[in-house]
Formats: sequence, C-alpha cells, structure tokens
Amino acid sequence: MKIIGHLINGAIVTDGTRTQDVFNPSTGEVAKQVALAGKATVEEAIAAAQAAFPAWRNTPPLKRARVMYRFKQLLEEHAEEICRLIGEEHGKIAHDAMGELQRGIENVAYACGVPELLKGEHSKNVGPAIDSWSEFQPLGVVAGITPFNFPAMVPLWMYPMAIACGNCFVLKPSERDPGSTLFIAQLLMEAGLPAGVINVVNGDKEAVDTLLDDPRVQAVSFVGSTPVAEYIYARASANGKRCQALGGAKNHAILLPDADMDNAVNALTGAAFGSSGERCMALSVAVAVGDAAAEAFIEKMKAQMQSLKVGAFNDKRNDFGPVITRAHLDKVVGYIDSAEAQGAEIVVDGRHPSVPGFDNGFFVGGTLIDRVTPDMLCYREEIFGPVLLVVRVQTMQQAMDLIDAHEYGNGTCIFTRDGEAARYFSDNIQVGMVGINVPLPVPVAYHSFGGWKRSLFGDLYAYGPDAVRFYTRRKTITQRWPSAGVREGVQFAFPS
Amino acid sequence: MKIIGHLINGAIVTDGTRTQDVFNPSTGEVAKQVALAGKATVEEAIAAAQAAFPAWRNTPPLKRARVMYRFKQLLEEHAEEICRLIGEEHGKIAHDAMGELQRGIENVAYACGVPELLKGEHSKNVGPAIDSWSEFQPLGVVAGITPFNFPAMVPLWMYPMAIACGNCFVLKPSERDPGSTLFIAQLLMEAGLPAGVINVVNGDKEAVDTLLDDPRVQAVSFVGSTPVAEYIYARASANGKRCQALGGAKNHAILLPDADMDNAVNALTGAAFGSSGERCMALSVAVAVGDAAAEAFIEKMKAQMQSLKVGAFNDKRNDFGPVITRAHLDKVVGYIDSAEAQGAEIVVDGRHPSVPGFDNGFFVGGTLIDRVTPDMLCYREEIFGPVLLVVRVQTMQQAMDLIDAHEYGNGTCIFTRDGEAARYFSDNIQVGMVGINVPLPVPVAYHSFGGWKRSLFGDLYAYGPDAVRFYTRRKTITQRWPSAGVREGVQFAFPS
Amino acid sequence: MKIIGHLINGAIVTDGTRTQDVFNPSTGEVAKQVALAGKATVEEAIAAAQAAFPAWRNTPPLKRARVMYRFKQLLEEHAEEICRLIGEEHGKIAHDAMGELQRGIENVAYACGVPELLKGEHSKNVGPAIDSWSEFQPLGVVAGITPFNFPAMVPLWMYPMAIACGNCFVLKPSERDPGSTLFIAQLLMEAGLPAGVINVVNGDKEAVDTLLDDPRVQAVSFVGSTPVAEYIYARASANGKRCQALGGAKNHAILLPDADMDNAVNALTGAAFGSSGERCMALSVAVAVGDAAAEAFIEKMKAQMQSLKVGAFNDKRNDFGPVITRAHLDKVVGYIDSAEAQGAEIVVDGRHPSVPGFDNGFFVGGTLIDRVTPDMLCYREEIFGPVLLVVRVQTMQQAMDLIDAHEYGNGTCIFTRDGEAARYFSDNIQVGMVGINVPLPVPVAYHSFGGWKRSLFGDLYAYGPDAVRFYTRRKTITQRWPSAGVREGVQFAFPS
Amino acid sequence: MKIIGHLINGAIVTDGTRTQDVFNPSTGEVAKQVALAGKATVEEAIAAAQAAFPAWRNTPPLKRARVMYRFKQLLEEHAEEICRLIGEEHGKIAHDAMGELQRGIENVAYACGVPELLKGEHSKNVGPAIDSWSEFQPLGVVAGITPFNFPAMVPLWMYPMAIACGNCFVLKPSERDPGSTLFIAQLLMEAGLPAGVINVVNGDKEAVDTLLDDPRVQAVSFVGSTPVAEYIYARASANGKRCQALGGAKNHAILLPDADMDNAVNALTGAAFGSSGERCMALSVAVAVGDAAAEAFIEKMKAQMQSLKVGAFNDKRNDFGPVITRAHLDKVVGYIDSAEAQGAEIVVDGRHPSVPGFDNGFFVGGTLIDRVTPDMLCYREEIFGPVLLVVRVQTMQQAMDLIDAHEYGNGTCIFTRDGEAARYFSDNIQVGMVGINVPLPVPVAYHSFGGWKRSLFGDLYAYGPDAVRFYTRRKTITQRWPSAGVREGVQFAFPS
Repeated sequence: MKIIGHLINGAIVTDGTRTQDVFNPSTGEVAKQVALAGKATVEEAIAAAQAAFPAWRNTPPLKRARVMYRFKQLLEEHAEEICRLIGEEHGKIAHDAMGELQRGIENVAYACGVPELLKGEHSKNVGPAIDSWSEFQPLGVVAGITPFNFPAMVPLWMYPMAIACGNCFVLKPSERDPGSTLFIAQLLMEAGLPAGVINVVNGDKEAVDTLLDDPRVQAVSFVGSTPVAEYIYARASANGKRCQALGGAKNHAILLPDADMDNAVNALTGAAFGSSGERCMALSVAVAVGDAAAEAFIEKMKAQMQSLKVGAFNDKRNDFGPVITRAHLDKVVGYIDSAEAQGAEIVVDGRHPSVPGFDNGFFVGGTLIDRVTPDMLCYREEIFGPVLLVVRVQTMQQAMDLIDAHEYGNGTCIFTRDGEAARYFSDNIQVGMVGINVPLPVPVAYHSFGGWKRSLFGDLYAYGPDAVRFYTRRKTITQRWPSAGVREGVQFAFPS
Repeated sequence: MKIIGHLINGAIVTDGTRTQDVFNPSTGEVAKQVALAGKATVEEAIAAAQAAFPAWRNTPPLKRARVMYRFKQLLEEHAEEICRLIGEEHGKIAHDAMGELQRGIENVAYACGVPELLKGEHSKNVGPAIDSWSEFQPLGVVAGITPFNFPAMVPLWMYPMAIACGNCFVLKPSERDPGSTLFIAQLLMEAGLPAGVINVVNGDKEAVDTLLDDPRVQAVSFVGSTPVAEYIYARASANGKRCQALGGAKNHAILLPDADMDNAVNALTGAAFGSSGERCMALSVAVAVGDAAAEAFIEKMKAQMQSLKVGAFNDKRNDFGPVITRAHLDKVVGYIDSAEAQGAEIVVDGRHPSVPGFDNGFFVGGTLIDRVTPDMLCYREEIFGPVLLVVRVQTMQQAMDLIDAHEYGNGTCIFTRDGEAARYFSDNIQVGMVGINVPLPVPVAYHSFGGWKRSLFGDLYAYGPDAVRFYTRRKTITQRWPSAGVREGVQFAFPS
Repeated sequence: MKIIGHLINGAIVTDGTRTQDVFNPSTGEVAKQVALAGKATVEEAIAAAQAAFPAWRNTPPLKRARVMYRFKQLLEEHAEEICRLIGEEHGKIAHDAMGELQRGIENVAYACGVPELLKGEHSKNVGPAIDSWSEFQPLGVVAGITPFNFPAMVPLWMYPMAIACGNCFVLKPSERDPGSTLFIAQLLMEAGLPAGVINVVNGDKEAVDTLLDDPRVQAVSFVGSTPVAEYIYARASANGKRCQALGGAKNHAILLPDADMDNAVNALTGAAFGSSGERCMALSVAVAVGDAAAEAFIEKMKAQMQSLKVGAFNDKRNDFGPVITRAHLDKVVGYIDSAEAQGAEIVVDGRHPSVPGFDNGFFVGGTLIDRVTPDMLCYREEIFGPVLLVVRVQTMQQAMDLIDAHEYGNGTCIFTRDGEAARYFSDNIQVGMVGINVPLPVPVAYHSFGGWKRSLFGDLYAYGPDAVRFYTRRKTITQRWPSAGVREGVQFAFPS
Repeated sequence: MKIIGHLINGAIVTDGTRTQDVFNPSTGEVAKQVALAGKATVEEAIAAAQAAFPAWRNTPPLKRARVMYRFKQLLEEHAEEICRLIGEEHGKIAHDAMGELQRGIENVAYACGVPELLKGEHSKNVGPAIDSWSEFQPLGVVAGITPFNFPAMVPLWMYPMAIACGNCFVLKPSERDPGSTLFIAQLLMEAGLPAGVINVVNGDKEAVDTLLDDPRVQAVSFVGSTPVAEYIYARASANGKRCQALGGAKNHAILLPDADMDNAVNALTGAAFGSSGERCMALSVAVAVGDAAAEAFIEKMKAQMQSLKVGAFNDKRNDFGPVITRAHLDKVVGYIDSAEAQGAEIVVDGRHPSVPGFDNGFFVGGTLIDRVTPDMLCYREEIFGPVLLVVRVQTMQQAMDLIDAHEYGNGTCIFTRDGEAARYFSDNIQVGMVGINVPLPVPVAYHSFGGWKRSLFGDLYAYGPDAVRFYTRRKTITQRWPSAGVREGVQFAFPS
C-alpha cells in the first residue's frame, strides 16, 4: 500500500516508525497510509530549514518571486491531478476542489508581488543629517499546522508568502488527507526552490509539540478547531514564539424582511452545504427577522433542497460529497438527533441518505432545521456538516445580539437592500469577516483572513498584507555619517 | 504624607488597603507613598474603561485627535513640573527628564495623525460588482504595564495611540516613581478626554495578574525586564489575549579601526552613563576591533570621564543622577565587584562616589571596565547602571558573533566611516535597532521600537505604525448589492 | 485708507505703484485698498523664497512640523479675528467663516503629520547586496494662486503642506478679499517660520504671469474658474513646470423616489444657498427622478425657503450674506432673468431682496427655479450664486447621463436608501467627488480634493496625500558598497 | 518587402498611404518597411480603444491581472524571437536585447500585482456615521509615444500597467525599429486581452499630433529627446490632458580618490559603451576628482578598451553593435571631431572602426576623450553614442556643481567607499536617479523612473508605483445613510 512520506531537505522520506490509514471517504476504504513523523524526523526537517536559511534570505526578493511565478504555472498545469488527490482523500467534488485550488493559487500570485510588499519605510533627516529606515527581514524557520478541510488552500495561505519573504518553512498538514498537500509542495521544489526551504512532515501531536517547543522555530501559524488553537497559541507563546492560531466558527446570516429572498436562498444553499459544510466559513445559521421572513425563506429553501445531490467526489453532477470520517459522520448525525430531541423542527432530514454504489461512504445529506434556539447543543457548537439551522427573532438588534453572544466571531452576513442596515451591521457586529449580501465573505488573497473573539488568537491575520508582517521582523536602522574633523558635544540627555 | 492614588473613571481614588514607600533617590528619603490597588480596584478600572468604550469608539477619529492636540499643548505647558516630579522620584537630571518628556510628546504628536493612520484598504470589484474593504477597529479595553526608568515616556508610547484608535486604557505604571505618570494622565483628562477612557492603577503583582486574567482586557503592552516579559507574554497569551512584551538588553557598540574615535567617545559617554545607564537602550558594551582601537578608545574615554559629574537631580550641572533604589545600587556595585574578581580591569571606578550633601543618595559613578570577557557575570547580565564594559576582539566578524551570541537583541551600533562595513553589519546583525555612528538608535516616534531575540515577545512593536496595528483589529467587509429581478445560479463550489 | 500690502521675506511691504479698492460687500463701501504687485515685486518674493530654501529643506521634518503645530494653535486663538476679516471683505456670516477656517485648520493639522507622510520606500537587495530607496524631496520655490470665495481655506489647502514638505512658497491670493489671507500668513511667521519661507504677493494678471514664467518657480497650484485654470495649466506647462489647476463646477444632486425628502431638503438648503452659493462645491442643480419626487421636493423646499435669511455678515441670525461684487450681483440676476426668459419657472425669486439698513449691499436672495432644461444658459454655466435649479427626468439613467454630459465634474450626490443605486451611481458617474446622501462631498483633510473633466487640470489633487506628492520630487538611490579586493566582471548587457 | 502595419482593434492593418524604410543597422540595408498612420487611422485606433473601455474597466482587476500573467509567460517563451527582431532593426547584441526584455518583463510582473496596487484609502467615521473612501479609477483611452533605443522595454514601462489599471491604450512606437514592439503587442492579444484594449499605430508627427489633440485621449506618456518632450508636454497640457514626458540626459559619474578604481572601470565600461551609448541612462561623463584619480582611471580604462568589440548584432562575442542610422553615425562622429577641434584629447578613437563583412553598417567604436571642459559642444549636448568624456576637477564640490549646472538631471553616480560622501552626494545632487557605486542607477520595476530638471516634464514618473497614479484618477466618495425618521437640522455653515 502506498505510504505518503515527508518532504525533508528536498527528498521524500519516511522514518518508518508509525503510520496511519488514509481513507477514501466516498467509499469508506483505506487506499493509502501516511507516515507519522517522530520527534527526530521533525527536528531533521527543522535542521534542513535552518541550514537553507542563510542563502535563501540573501536571495533577492525578485529572484524569490520568480520561483513563485513558476510555482503558480505548475499549479495551473497540474490542477486536475491535484483536485483528484483532494477528492480521493477529502471527498469534495472536483468543481469544489478547483475552487479551493484557485483560491490557493491566488495566494501564490499575491506572494509573487513580494518585492513590492517588503518595502520598508525610509525617513530622511530624522535629525540633522541623520536618516532612519525600517527593513522587514525574514524570521528564519517558521512552521505551519493545517487542517483537513482545505488540504490545498490553507497551506497555500501560509508558506508561499513565508518563503517569498525569505523564510524557510516546515509544514505539518492534516494526517487525514495529506496527499495533495505533499504533491503541491513537490511542485514548488520543481519550480526551482532550493532544498530545505520547504519541508513537509506528516504527523500527529508528537510532531506538533516538537514544532511548538523547538527553539529554532520562530513562528507558528495554525488553522483548526478552537480548543487546539488555544493550546497552540498558549504553548508557542510560552516558548517565546510569535503565533497566529485560527479556530472554529458558527457563521450566521441575518435575513431582513427586505432581502431578495430568492437571492438569499441561492446564496445560502452553496454556503451552507457546499463541501458538506466542512468549512470554517460555512454559513450554518440563518437568523430570520420576523416570522414572515422565516417562512418565506424556509419554503423556498426546502424547495431548493429537493435538487441537492450528495455523492461521491468523482461525479461532477454531485453538489457535495461525504464528510471526512465515519466518526465525524456520527458526530454530525448526533447533532441533528440532539436538535430533534431538544425540540427543533427537522424540515429537511439528511441523515442516512441513499448513495447507490457507495454504501460505505461517509455521507450526510443536506439538512434544514427550523425553530432552533440558542440553548440547543446544535446551536452552541460548530457542527461542520451540511446542516443549516434557522433561528427566528423579531428585530435586527436581537439578531445582532445573538451573533455577538456566540463565542465565535469568524464570518457573518446580512441580506438586505438597505444601505443603513448594512452599514450599522458591518460597523457594530463583533465578527471579523462580514458579508453584505455575500454569504461566504472570505477576503480575497490581497486582503487578510481572520475572525474575532475565540475564532482567532494573535494579532496578525492569515495571508494578504498581514502575512507579510507575520513572517517578517522589523529592523530599524538609524544612520549618521560623521563629517571629518567636526567634534560633537557630549550628549547626556536623552536626545530630543 | 502624600499618598499617590489611582485614576479611575475620571477621579483620583485610593482603595485604602495597601501602600508602599516612594523614595527620593537623590536623598534616600521617603517623601510620598503610593497606594497599591487590589483586585477589586483594578476590576473597577476595567469596568470604567469597558463602560466608556461604546461612546468613545463611535467618536470620529478627527475628534479623538483633537483631544491629543490639546494634550500635547498641556504637556508642553507643564513640562517643568513634570520633570521635577520625575527627578524627585526617579532621580534623573532635568535636562534628561526633558529629553524623555520630549520623546513622549512626539508620541502624542504621532497619535494626532490617527485619522491618516487608521485608513483601511478599499478594493473595488474584487468580483463583478463586489467590493471589499478593511477597517481597523479598536479592541475595547487594553492595558499597559510600564517600568520605572521612563515614567513619562513609556506610558506615552502606549496609551495616546491606543486611545486615539478608539480604545479605553488601564495603565499600571511602576510603583517606584508613579507621580509624574499620574500627573500626565490627569492632563489628558484636562484635555477633554471622557471619564473612563484612561485609567491608572498603581500596584504590584496582584494588579498585574488581574489585568492579565480579566477577560474584558483585550490586549496587554509591557515594558520591563525579560523574565517578567516572558511571564506576561505567556500568561496573557494563555488567556487568549494579544500581547507585546519588551524585555531587557545588553547593547554593544563596535569600534572599527577607522572610526572617528573622538566622535565615538563623545557619543558613548552619553549613551553609557546618561540616566545612570538605566535605559533599555543604554550602550553598555564597547567592542573594540584590534588592540589599537581599544587603547585609543580607553585613553580618550578615561580622560573624558574625568569631567563626568554624578549628583542630585535638581542641579543641572550634573551629568546624571542616582540609581533608583538602594537595592539596585548594591546590585550594580556587585556587578563591578564581580568583574574585578573575575579578572577584568577597572579603569575608572565609580563605586562609592562622594556626593557632598547627599550622603544617603543612591549614587554610583561612571565606571569603565576593560578586558571583559563573555563568560563574566557583568557581561552576561544587564547591569542597568553607569558601567561601560570594553571587550577586545581581533575582527569585525568576532565582534558580530559576540553580539549575536548574547541572549538580548535590543539595540546595537557600529562606529566606522566605511559604507560596506555599515551595510554588512546592519543587514546581518541579529538586533532590532541598529545605529550607524549613532549610539542610541531609538527609532523616532513615527517608526516603531522593538528588539529581537529575548528582548521582545510578540510580533508588533511599540509605538509608531506598529502600535496602530496592535491596538486595532482588522475587520474585512465584502459587499454586493443585488440587482432587482436578477436571479443568481446556485454556487456549490468554493467561489474562484 | 488702509492699504493691504505684501509679505516678502518676513516683512510687510507695498511697492507703491498700483492699488485696487477692497469692498465691504454687505455695505457696498470701500474701506480698504490692496497693493497690486508689479513684476519686480513678485520677483523679489521669488528671490526671498529661493534664498530661504537651502536652510529650510535641511531642517528636519519633525522641526518643520513643530512650526505647523504652533500655527494651528495661533489660528485657533485668532479665529474670531480671522472670521471678522473674512466677513468684512467677502461677506460671509461668522458661522460660515468659522466652518471655512476650521477646514483650513484641519489642513494645517494634516501637515503636522509630515514626518509620516514623507516616508520613502526602501527596498533591500534589489540585486545581490544592492539596496534602493526613494526619497520625496522638496521642489524649491512653489506658487499658489487662490480665489476670493475661500480666502482662508484654499490658501491653507496649499502652503502648509508645501512648506511642511520643505518648500518655500509664494502665494498670490484674490485681490478682492486679501485681508484675512495676509493676516493668516503673518500668524505663520509668528509661529516661528524663517523669513522667506512664506511670501504673499497681492496682484492681478501681471503678478500671475510673473509666477507662471519665472524659471525659479517649480510648481503652480491654482483654484479658480475653468477658463483661467486652462490658461494657467497651459502656460505653466509650456514653461516646463508641474501644475495643478482646479476650475469651475456645476454640482448636481439626484433625488430618487425612495429618498428621505425632508432630509434631502434640509441638506440641499445649506448646500445650495450657504455662502450665497459662491462655492465650487455648491449644489446648484437638483435632478428629480419622476414628477412625484420633483413635486414633493419643490413643495418642501419652497416652504423651507420661507425662513431663509440673507443679510450682512455681522449678524449671526442671517443664513447667508451678499455676493462678492456688484458686477457679480448683476451676473447672477442676469442668469435668473435668462432662465425666466427661456421658459423656466421661478418658484422662489431672490432678485432684489430687501435688506434693511444695507441698501447698497450686494445681495441676492435664495432662488428656486423649476423646469430647467439642459439647453438653458442658467444650466450650462456656473452661476456662483444662491440659485437652485430643478431639472426633471424620468429615470436614474437619464439623471446620470445629464451629469456626465456637463462639461464640469467636480462634485455630485444622490439621495436614496438603496445600496445598489448608490453603488452604481458612485462607480459610474464621471465626477471626482461623490456624495451618498451627503450634499457637499468635500473630502476631509486627510483625503484629497479634485474634480474630473474640465473641473481639474493635472494629475494630482489638492491637499491630503496628493499634496505631498505634488509638492515633492521623487529621488531614487541605488546603492552598492564594493567589497574590498573583489573584482567584478564587465557588464555590457543591460543588467537583468 | 515586408510592411510592418498597425494593430487596431485586434487586427493587423495598414492604411496603405505612406511607408518608411526600416534599416538593419548592422548591414546598412533596408529589409522592411513600416506603414505610417495618417490621422484617420490613428482616430480609428482611438475609437477602438474607446469602444473597448466600458467592458474592460468593469473587468475585475484580478481578471485583468490574469492576462498579464499569461503575457509574462508568452514573453518568456518568445524571448529569443523578440531579441532577434530587436537586433535586426536596432542593432543591439542578443545579450543586451535580453537584458532590455528582462527589464520589460519585470514591468509586466509588477502589473500582475495590480489588485494590491489599486487599493484605495477607506476612512470610517469621517463624521458621525459618515464614511469616505477613495477609488483609483482608470482614465479611459491613454496614449504612449516611445523611442527607438528600447523598442521592447519602454513600451512595456507603459501599457502593461495602464491596461492592468483598466485603461485602453494606443501606442505609437518609434518608426525606426517597430518590429519587436508590434510582435510583443500581438503576444498580449494572444494572452487573452479583448480587442481594442491595446492598439499600436506606427507613424510620425501626424500620428503624434493626432494623439495629442484628440479629446478622447486622456493622458500621454512620452520618452524621447528633451525638445520633443517639451513640445509634447506643452501641447498635451494645452489640450487639458495629463502628461508625463521624459527627455534627454547627460549622466556623470564622480570618481573620488578613494574609489575602487578597477571596479569603477569595469562598471563604466558597460555603462558608457553598452548598447553603443544609446541609452538615456548611459554614463557619458566621468568626473575625476584630482589628477591622480583621472590618470589612474584613464590608464586602466584605456587598457580595458583594448578588448572592446563593436560589431553586428548577431554575433554574441561582440560587446555592442552599430548606432541606429547613418545620420546618427555622422552626428556622433561630428561630436568627436568637435571635441578634438575644441582642444580635448582623444585617448581612444572609435571613429571609422573596421568591422569586416559589415562595411555598410553604422558603426562607431568605443571612444575615450580626456580633458573635456564644460564649454565644449561634446559636453553640453547628449551624444547618444559610445563616447566617454573625462572632466577633471579638484574637489567633490566642483564635481557636484558641474552636474547641477547641466540642463539635464536624469541619472548620476559616485564611486567611493566613504559613507559620508555618498550620503552628501545623494542628498544634494539635483538629479533624479542616483547611484552609489552603481553606474546605471535605473530603478527596479517596483520603484519609478524619472529624472529632474529638463530630463522630465510632469509630476509622476514612469512605471512602478507612480504609473498606477498616472494611469488612474482619484474618486472620493462620502457616504451617510439616513436613519429613518430622524430629521436633521439645516446646515448653512460650511461643515466643520
């Protein structure tokens, strides 16, 4: 059986100690295994990165960018192969995998602009004939730890910019679907990156803790669930590192009575069920303002969901695929059960769908639940499945209070035609990414991604301009050239 | 005896539980006491800040800036009074206090520019008829914890910008010299700041821990010693807050053989002994490249030090004053003793200086120690006294290796006339603030302050442009206005 | 009779050759005269500026900014006196003069931030060990030519930033109301500006042409009418100078049927009649979409105009004052006459108002004209008086086409509640400053002011960030320090 | 014989009226002809651009950038073919053509970053609940007029960014070597650009004047000689357009006594003779400070020039090729003759070199002239040939005065090891592009290109960040959403 190894110092290796099964979620079968790196293997990757750093940091940004241009080209040329790998291990349909990859490529494109992005600030004459400027220098070895749900995109949020800035990188992707991630990193090597600048180690907590504790690792980027994000942030920080840790979400859409309801239903269908809801930006709660809005929405959504197709990744007619594991399938179904038990109304029931020919696949169908209340388990926690909850409120303020009271603050949106409502909402809501008639307000690659409250720990966000700052360290130089023969008076006071 | 209280919600209060003596270091006498806030008092300050936040965040930046303009004016008008307070409690001479204050005022001036600094990024047509922009919104309640050595300047690094950005602030200054800090905060109230926006609590570890643990505090800025900085950074981070913690330093100057040695001696005299060396940017190690440079330097510096005057804060003819406490005096003298015991050569001995009329003052005279080696205690630790060490090396690379091997990386400088040497040094040295023929390379207020290695924990620096980012949270809005009657197709794929 | 002179090299002078009357438009009387500078006098001002330049450009920006902080303070302290001078010579009521001055002061405040604004771009390693950076250096002597309608504000758009950037300035204000302008420039001297850095010459075409032709003048900023702007732009450009020339306007407001009509009427009352309509951002055409909107608007506006009070500048109960000259009064009345003659409907007639006690003042009352069509003279030209035209159209597209067809493109606005309409309008309209429910969309001081089409000639706008670029010249330095003993190969090819 | 036509609206056309010979300067033969567009043909191109504009401006910047990525790839794939075309018509050797092309490609790469570069400034709460932001919108139809010496690079300075910003372009390249320029534009069409967005018209003054006078053309970029630049700038400006016009140069290198002379000689050999000196950044004057420096330089340079090879474009062993025309050959030789006649010393004489097999080629060999004085014709004018003048002065100040007294201020450089000399020089010299030990200080593509004095007319420079501003027009939107039912007071005063 194929074993997915690590990429260390330019070569694919396995350390031969431990492995773990990788499932095809559409069939439920195990077709590959992934090597799990022990501490020594991770340290080897860190050492390779450390060794590659001096030459790479001295490579002019323009030349570092040229590698990224070639990488972008290779990603475009191998897009289908990447999407197939994603589908096999994650289960998402090709059109969705292509969307993910495209977003990832846009991050590579942004990293191509690194010569512009690294510009420092230059000040002439901060004092008489004294100049001062800032440089943004690379940190050295930096690490990324990424989740299963976007095996191509989330790593591409991190290392293209980190590397373009002059750092060397150790990536620990999800061990559940590591194939596409590794393949993409190999394309980057093919694009001309020197050995050791990018390293990929597959693994579990042992690998993670090694990255968090090793003093050579200067910074850690993480995307995953909130409890793990908190752990990562606390441990990396206790070790004196800089850290950005992105966690969970519970994204609400407010439906105002003046919303274009057909538009809202269309938008939410993709946002709630696309990729089986396994997105940190999935729209999982619709908050209808007024019962009329609620009923109009539910009626239209119910109708729309008739044509929703769940099925295997390799049939493009499907709208979405399986969830990642059987355990996760059980968890999602458990949330639906609990909603029913706690008095919510299951409008469309996606439990135990029939997917002919894929009886062992990890499928949950699109599910719509009305009359959910904030105390229910299904509301309080992130389901990460194709389940859309409807909460009914009577005023826009109630809807906003609900959102602000939730522990997560990743994304949210509002459907309305009214300029004033949209502005008030976007100004005041305690959420980091806000959509106005846009259900998945993921910032484009030239902005930055980050939630508020317990959805993000740290002060700089993922990708975009913030990534440049996260992956570099400011150095400020103050320069004065002495004129010959001119003696200066002693300065005891702090210069003013 | 005068008790220095807290500023909470616009009023000066004491909670009457615990107090601590405040010394006049020039005389060794206790003239005032400072109230030490308990947990409840700190929570009261946090609550006041929290309550003031909604109105203050909604105040247009231009109007927030107007308060800062008035504050700047009041600081200028009360400069002498502030310097007297600093002198009484800290011991620094008026000209040095004025330098400190001037630097603080420049930070207020920078905060006056907040309307410009808060500009977000606006992108038209991120997709067809979809726009996206970022706003930098205030965090809410933020806290600052500041050291004794710059009681005016370091707090002014923090709260003017935090407040100009729309936050409300709780400051815990050093309990050793809290008088000027409190007075300055009262001037800010006089400038028209609403009650609760700035709060000052004096205290010790209890106050600090309350700020670190209270969930209403969103961010913590700290300046102090490295062990405390590490503690603060780890604890604030474990509580999910953003944190920037600035620690200790051991700043080296490289003297190349081509340096203008008179210039270097003049520059280092102020940088090493000014403010009794109690500055995190004090230049405490001179690394001479070649014995000729070392001897030329020592001869000139020894001569120069003949005229150095240590004495009480209120005599302007003095070059520098006492250290902060008797305990600190003993510690500094202990470092000199240890240098002597470990084989270094005490060229100028400042132990037990005679300061007529101030027999109980905490004075150490300017001290020059030659033939220091990296293994000596006086080299490994931060002395924070008027002591300049000379280390001799044979090459510039040895000098740079020495600097890079030290745990701290705050500031450093080089004396040379050679462009190539200066560029190589500033490019490669692992230090955050680099001077070229500038002994105290403190960035001006419109750049940012921060060291590398164990001199700073966090990713954004103090004051300047970084402070704007530290005290704000990015919110990204993506907006699309539906055109009437146009139905959109369902989007299941992740949008590309 | 008082003669208003010139400010040259720090002293008030007159050249004693020619003078012109300055009227008090509220009374029609001549109370002062202004000296008109001949060519030699203007050249003297230019020479003074040229002589002051080397020292001023070398003054650190932080110190240049300090002059601006003091200037701001002096303007605030002398605000009433300035407003009285404006009122006497221009006729505007104190509350309006104060608004003008406040806007001017905000430009001074923005100039205080010049150390931040002058930051250049620094790039490390544009090639191996080659660095490059840009500096924005001052131009030298620059000139401003300003109109009568904002004697305080428009000059303050120009010279504070020009001077803060390190230039020396020659201002030629309007000869119709030069008193406040000169007084303000004297305050800047009082703030500590060295002699020669700011110079004011009063004059007419001879002065203007001298500024346009003298080779020492590097750049010209102009605000006035479009024919003069074109002349200035062509002549300054033919002389090889950089030039920005702001001209006339015809600002339209679109009233959509969903607009909050009370709000629109309130907003337009001030925007149309404030300062007698003598503003390049005056809102002079209301375009009602649909007859219902037109009639609702006219009815409410007619009612509102009952309480409009025109009168002398020194009575604060007045809403607006006289126009600038008798000739201009006749011109405005002529436009109203022509509208009547061409078939428009005079709804409220402001011709020949009664202003008891001020029979000789140059007064026109608020005038509302309905059923104006694009071919009428009153529509095609800028009236610059308290006259609001109403044009009726049937669709929003017709309204937009009307605006785009007009030769001017300074400001415009739309009244609606609909997000989509606002976005479509602001995206597509060929106008530089766009208001959404904001009748006078004058950018704040930290943005830049400029119209499109024949309302502005040049590529950089007035004040704000654009002013920094207009008043500085980019210099790019590329630096490589040769390493000793390393010989480089000959490079014949263009380096890549 | 092949006729090089125009690219209009996606198709290659000729208007069949007038043509002109295109020479192969290496052989002196005519191998192609170029069509010269009449007024009607140019207007057709403008009309095509105008028609393509509405759709192109509405194409999201990310999609416009995708065309540029493909264009970059196509340029890389066709590099050899392009270099051959350049060589045939211009005469430069392949390695030099490749350097030119590489620089051009870097400008395309920079244009790929247009989504980042187009970001506007967003300000929340410029007043209570009022927001304001700037957009940088494309101008419409813009034109470029480019010189013969960089037929690939200079057009690529202009239209990639103009087009990426959303404009449509009409390019009038040099009629002397139009082949590569047209070929490259066709590659851009192949990359997926819609028809009409890029148009190329070959022609002479008739074409130029049509572009300058047509009201649909919004902006003109020009690179060429100073007299033509002045004409273009004056005429375009008189027509109300924005214009940037780059003219001639006379670039000096200062040789200080401490310079690494081998390094300087190597650097200047390429900078003076590369591309036969037909570069606006060619280094044509060496100013030696002190006779010792002069003699050391001349001795080494004379030796170095022994191995310089002039010859046909298609032999890679040649260092440089012919000049562009026989007339230009005669002009260059005339300058050398005049130097001799005026008393300068011809150290190496490149007149009438022998190039076996290419007797009719337009060759001038590398020429070194010592003891040139500022009054000589060869010093006052731009030679644009492989001729290096040496001027001797006694002090650095004399060297700088010489440079500042020259009418041109494009580029300059200094050779020294001294930080102070370099800083003083770069600060004070009246030249736009300054090299420190860099002989051709052409800014990289992410900075901007522009000289001072009579080397550039306009305020924004070529390529880099300035190009974004030149090719866009600022629009500032101020937005306030009315809250229902809240009536606002009338505002007569100018809002403050």
